[in-house]
Amino acid sequence: MVTIRDVYAARPHVYRFLKPTPLHRYSGLNEASGLDLYVKHENHQPVGAFKVRGGLNLAAGLTAGQRAAGLFTASTGNHGQSIAFAARAFGMTATIAVPEGANEAKVQAMEGLGADVVAHGPDFDAAREWIAAVAQDAGGTFVGPTDDPLIAGVATLTLEIMEDLPDVDVIIVPVGAGSGVCGAAVVAKSINPAIKVIGVQSAQAPTQQLTWLNGAPTTGPMETFIEGVATRAPFDNTHALMAKYLDDFVLVDDDETRAAMLMLIEHTRNLPEGAAALPLAAALSMRSRLVNKKVAIDFSGGNITLAQLRELLA
Amino acid sequence: MVTIRDVYAARPHVYRFLKPTPLHRYSGLNEASGLDLYVKHENHQPVGAFKVRGGLNLAAGLTAGQRAAGLFTASTGNHGQSIAFAARAFGMTATIAVPEGANEAKVQAMEGLGADVVAHGPDFDAAREWIAAVAQDAGGTFVGPTDDPLIAGVATLTLEIMEDLPDVDVIIVPVGAGSGVCGAAVVAKSINPAIKVIGVQSAQAPTQQLTWLNGAPTTGPMETFIEGVATRAPFDNTHALMAKYLDDFVLVDDDETRAAMLMLIEHTRNLPEGAAALPLAAALSMRSRLVNKKVAIDFSGGNITLAQLRELLA
Repeated sequence: MVTIRDVYAARPHVYRFLKPTPLHRYSGLNEASGLDLYVKHENHQPVGAFKVRGGLNLAAGLTAGQRAAGLFTASTGNHGQSIAFAARAFGMTATIAVPEGANEAKVQAMEGLGADVVAHGPDFDAAREWIAAVAQDAGGTFVGPTDDPLIAGVATLTLEIMEDLPDVDVIIVPVGAGSGVCGAAVVAKSINPAIKVIGVQSAQAPTQQLTWLNGAPTTGPMETFIEGVATRAPFDNTHALMAKYLDDFVLVDDDETRAAMLMLIEHTRNLPEGAAALPLAAALSMRSRLVNKKVAIDFSGGNITLAQLRELLA
Repeated sequence: MVTIRDVYAARPHVYRFLKPTPLHRYSGLNEASGLDLYVKHENHQPVGAFKVRGGLNLAAGLTAGQRAAGLFTASTGNHGQSIAFAARAFGMTATIAVPEGANEAKVQAMEGLGADVVAHGPDFDAAREWIAAVAQDAGGTFVGPTDDPLIAGVATLTLEIMEDLPDVDVIIVPVGAGSGVCGAAVVAKSINPAIKVIGVQSAQAPTQQLTWLNGAPTTGPMETFIEGVATRAPFDNTHALMAKYLDDFVLVDDDETRAAMLMLIEHTRNLPEGAAALPLAAALSMRSRLVNKKVAIDFSGGNITLAQLRELLA
């Protein structure tokens, strides 16, 4: 189980290639929301999302032999960009399976980073099963979406939150496979157990939330437009951490997330992908619980296409 | 005349409140442009634009008596946000004159930072003359848009470029009043005179470029939609630096800038205000001169309104 020691061990690997991201407080956003929000800008990363921290930490921990055999993974987009970025940073090859019809901006970005991108299967899980077998045949490293070094790497973003805002009361994080929220929980709870860590998922894809509520793998519908949180199956290691640490796990409707995306564009002048607006949508839906609290919201990524942006603004 | 020593003196004041911003290379943007571009993300600043570095340096240099009497300035937006941010950081009042019809997002942002914003006159220069008189009556500090401490403060962004990309060949900067391009020139030329520093202005508002070409104050038309570079009158101190250091000063048509704004959104997933897209538009217009060169473009700010964004995407 990942601990805060693993997060400190990840820091030098992460900062060899990345800078800390800012935590900004926007007066217009706080006025409009009636809350005291602090926005953690993971969209400022070179690949536009928080996951790049994890890929670098994972790659840094491989042997020379493992590096020579390359990385293999499946992704709806941001995880794959993370692995592609890390592979390039460490001189490795990366082969990434995506579901057919994946976000074209993210596919191009992975290819631009030098990865070999292969479309396979109707969804993330189908692509993942296929590439895991490919990796085994090739003798390479298959990277699952929640491997422990990824959790420890992405958790460095929450250490930055603690450094910038030591009296944070609540941290709200979108949940896809769970590496982000688990990293936040490990760091925040280790430093101050009174900090509330809240996960948020789409009401149109609640598998992770149902699993957390029931304490056992539970599958729900999967009809969200937000590919970053469109996960069909729970993962053992992130659910063990969520069960241990998470204070709450809420759902927000995709229409509320669309409204939150517009609000973020208007008041932060940053582009959110859908997942990045879930924490704001969640905060608005539980406003009375957050009054007079310092609330950090994870702006997890900004990888939205022009077509998606046009549709949102129309 | 500002020197690189002033820029080093500004660093501790700037980094007391701000983090360095990233310089990102986007494979998609480079493929689309056919160039090797490095994007300096000043839109990641807490007020969404580079000028905040200058305000902090200016405020840090004031006496206790000057701080008690407050800051007064005029702005089309980003300079005012810088002064408002700096005033709040140092516990001062800020009174900011804006032209009537100023960018509402920027006005709200200044007010959100605690500034007293007063609309006066049809354009920047009318607002400026009026507030200078108000400052004198009140015994406060009038801050001009190109005061030397502002140039030295904003020049810290170019030191960051030199640290991240020491073999940069060309730096392209949008020119409003000139503090940004002069800061870039002072730093780049002091470290390596072979680095080309190029200013860019709208062909619909070429006063600064004409003044640079003629070596004497020259007024051109002022019909651009880009408020960040809509300056009517040249300034002595920035023109002395531009005359000394600038390798070229080019104009781009506002339609080219609109196309560059879309290209930046698509390939960087960052929102540019008009001025922030001028360097890309200029780079595209001089592509043959930039082949095989490392070109840093100053993404100077991101303060675009939802209405402006909708119009751009329509």
